[in-house]
Amino acid sequence: MKTNLERIKQDLEELTKFTATPGEGMTRLSLTEEDQKTRGYLTREMRSLGIQVYEDAAGNLFGRIEGELKDGPVVMVGSHFDSVRNGGNFDGPAGVVAGLEIARVIMENNIKTRYPVEVVAMIEEEGGRFGQGLYGSKAMAGKVTKEQLMQNRDENGISMFEAMKDFGLNPERIETARRDKNKIKAFLELHIEQGPVLEKNGEEVGIVHYIVGIHEFRVKLKGRPDHAGTTPMDMRADPLDAASKVISRISGLAREAGQGTVVTVGILNVKPGAANIVPSEVVFTVDIRSKDSSCIDWVGRQIQMSLETVTAGTKVRYEMEDLLKVEPVELSQGIRDIMGKYCEKKGIAWREMLSGAGHDAMVMAGITDAGLVFVPSKGGRSHCPEEWTDYREIQKGIEVLLHTVLDIAEIIDN
Amino acid sequence: MKTNLERIKQDLEELTKFTATPGEGMTRLSLTEEDQKTRGYLTREMRSLGIQVYEDAAGNLFGRIEGELKDGPVVMVGSHFDSVRNGGNFDGPAGVVAGLEIARVIMENNIKTRYPVEVVAMIEEEGGRFGQGLYGSKAMAGKVTKEQLMQNRDENGISMFEAMKDFGLNPERIETARRDKNKIKAFLELHIEQGPVLEKNGEEVGIVHYIVGIHEFRVKLKGRPDHAGTTPMDMRADPLDAASKVISRISGLAREAGQGTVVTVGILNVKPGAANIVPSEVVFTVDIRSKDSSCIDWVGRQIQMSLETVTAGTKVRYEMEDLLKVEPVELSQGIRDIMGKYCEKKGIAWREMLSGAGHDAMVMAGITDAGLVFVPSKGGRSHCPEEWTDYREIQKGIEVLLHTVLDIAEIIDN
Repeated sequence: MKTNLERIKQDLEELTKFTATPGEGMTRLSLTEEDQKTRGYLTREMRSLGIQVYEDAAGNLFGRIEGELKDGPVVMVGSHFDSVRNGGNFDGPAGVVAGLEIARVIMENNIKTRYPVEVVAMIEEEGGRFGQGLYGSKAMAGKVTKEQLMQNRDENGISMFEAMKDFGLNPERIETARRDKNKIKAFLELHIEQGPVLEKNGEEVGIVHYIVGIHEFRVKLKGRPDHAGTTPMDMRADPLDAASKVISRISGLAREAGQGTVVTVGILNVKPGAANIVPSEVVFTVDIRSKDSSCIDWVGRQIQMSLETVTAGTKVRYEMEDLLKVEPVELSQGIRDIMGKYCEKKGIAWREMLSGAGHDAMVMAGITDAGLVFVPSKGGRSHCPEEWTDYREIQKGIEVLLHTVLDIAEIIDN
Repeated sequence: MKTNLERIKQDLEELTKFTATPGEGMTRLSLTEEDQKTRGYLTREMRSLGIQVYEDAAGNLFGRIEGELKDGPVVMVGSHFDSVRNGGNFDGPAGVVAGLEIARVIMENNIKTRYPVEVVAMIEEEGGRFGQGLYGSKAMAGKVTKEQLMQNRDENGISMFEAMKDFGLNPERIETARRDKNKIKAFLELHIEQGPVLEKNGEEVGIVHYIVGIHEFRVKLKGRPDHAGTTPMDMRADPLDAASKVISRISGLAREAGQGTVVTVGILNVKPGAANIVPSEVVFTVDIRSKDSSCIDWVGRQIQMSLETVTAGTKVRYEMEDLLKVEPVELSQGIRDIMGKYCEKKGIAWREMLSGAGHDAMVMAGITDAGLVFVPSKGGRSHCPEEWTDYREIQKGIEVLLHTVLDIAEIIDN
């Protein structure tokens, strides 16, 4: 009952080919040609094992191994396969390959379990195309509506609803992607750490006890476009002047909040965007993360107060719009115990740790017991072409996950 | 010897049609279809007067009325016909139409002058496509090289050199656009004020004594893209954090400099541009204008010091690149006297005033006597679709300019 390093390596190397930006990192946005090719590869690999392959109405791809209890609750294992723009080859796919390799080990060893096991490859976790992060797991948790699919649009104005139809999915039936709580026994995910902690401490596996909460919102500041030369400073309504005053305070707010709180402005667009025109509009995003939701709320309030202050007495107006709001989530103590004991038994160097990034496991924890295993990220780098985890490290994480899947699914015959 | 309001109105209304963004203001970038259509209209109108029409190697369009002195120095009158993106219909074209109307009045009244008169329609004054502002007049002043044409590129990477060739111009011969100082007697321009001063004071005409100096430069800040959730604040190299700290100080620096100094950040781009990735690169422009070059230099130094301060002890690095540097320019006292006396005689409400915007007259002042007449801008608005000057106000300015042209060109027979 061994995992196979060569297969893991080959899967990961094959998946790196399906990028829209070859030579400039992984760009695999949802419902694109690259997405389709990835599904093709995974489907062929799963079918070759003789297991049932299907897609739900949301576009998540599954491979199902029946259990003794035909209609019993399923042990689901996997991750997402979409990426950010010009990202890396491991964020998501490492966990999808983990699921695939676990299915192979089960099938080739003819392992029978009481409960069914499903491998899952989820889409649009990053929100890289349509802006709704954690979409695949949210659809399974029943938190995606047809209306949202119509509202979520990519940069070309194509709605997720339209894109799904063009892709051969049926967005009208999005509700059918919802999983009955009683029909999922557990959700298990392997993911790269995307931070420097495991590498710095020389540890092989991180068992996540807590996933940070995230509040992501968009700020739009509207002023008035004026000639850069003929409009005196005190007659301007310059939204970039206002935005810069707010943004310049943000890193200080994060430090003040403490508790490992991090705040990021990753998008900032200026209109009309000419050197000799005072900007008329600035839009930027704010991403706040902390294990303590009171820290998140405090930073959000401080930013709003700062917006009030800098626009007071000016003709600049602001709007804030929530993009993502997720509470901090504690993962299953029972699953963590299974993982930790296995690591001890096998002499695997591990630590219990916080996840600073949101993951599908966070959403799935709302409907079932969820577990999340981290493997080291070289240099802590992620969301960039340099993202890297050694294949042996991924294999180590997969072994922890395989053991956990089989423990929960209950081996009845091997 | 009267100007004709209907013709002025018709010219301006015709020219508004040649925009790439109908319904969203004037977007007439250089060497485009809209540029070509504008040349077509102006060429037809000038040819119908029976005057010689030609283009120089830079792409400036001329209509020439011979003087008694066949090879005598020319009195040139006109402005530019390119626009910013989504700008207005008057910035530039008002002055081109002024030149055209003056040619009409001269021809229909069979006025003979000692010196030749040339109407000019110049391109790329805004730098809206290729980034080199004041290009048409600079070419006449001998300040554009073939190498610059190869370096200046539009947002699609097309060089000005290539675009000129495709347009039927000969960029290899750019030096031939240079005008001999001895062959230009004067340059006269009418332009909208683009600011609120004339309107607020109920004045009809501004006679510009002084054009502000401009220093425009680009700042590039490079950091490192990191995951927004897993990278602690003190391990980031965030160029937007640094940029915001510099930009937030800029309006204060402008006020501190005084002397009507204005500073604008009109362009700011963030890469890679995702809500959950710490930015890797920020590029922004700074535009500093003042009638006092020591104020301009002081603000520039303060910004550089601020860049030093905010990047010190971080892994963020910055570069600065000059885009435009023009010294403040005083316009011809002799021409201002002619204009002022005419206004007094005709009871036109006028003022001597500063130009906060750069104009071709500023560059032309380097090779000849230059004069610049302002007409009021409604609400002081410019570089936006709402830009407006009443046709009667434009006509008043044209009359001042017509008188000045004829005074300098010396009427010999009417």
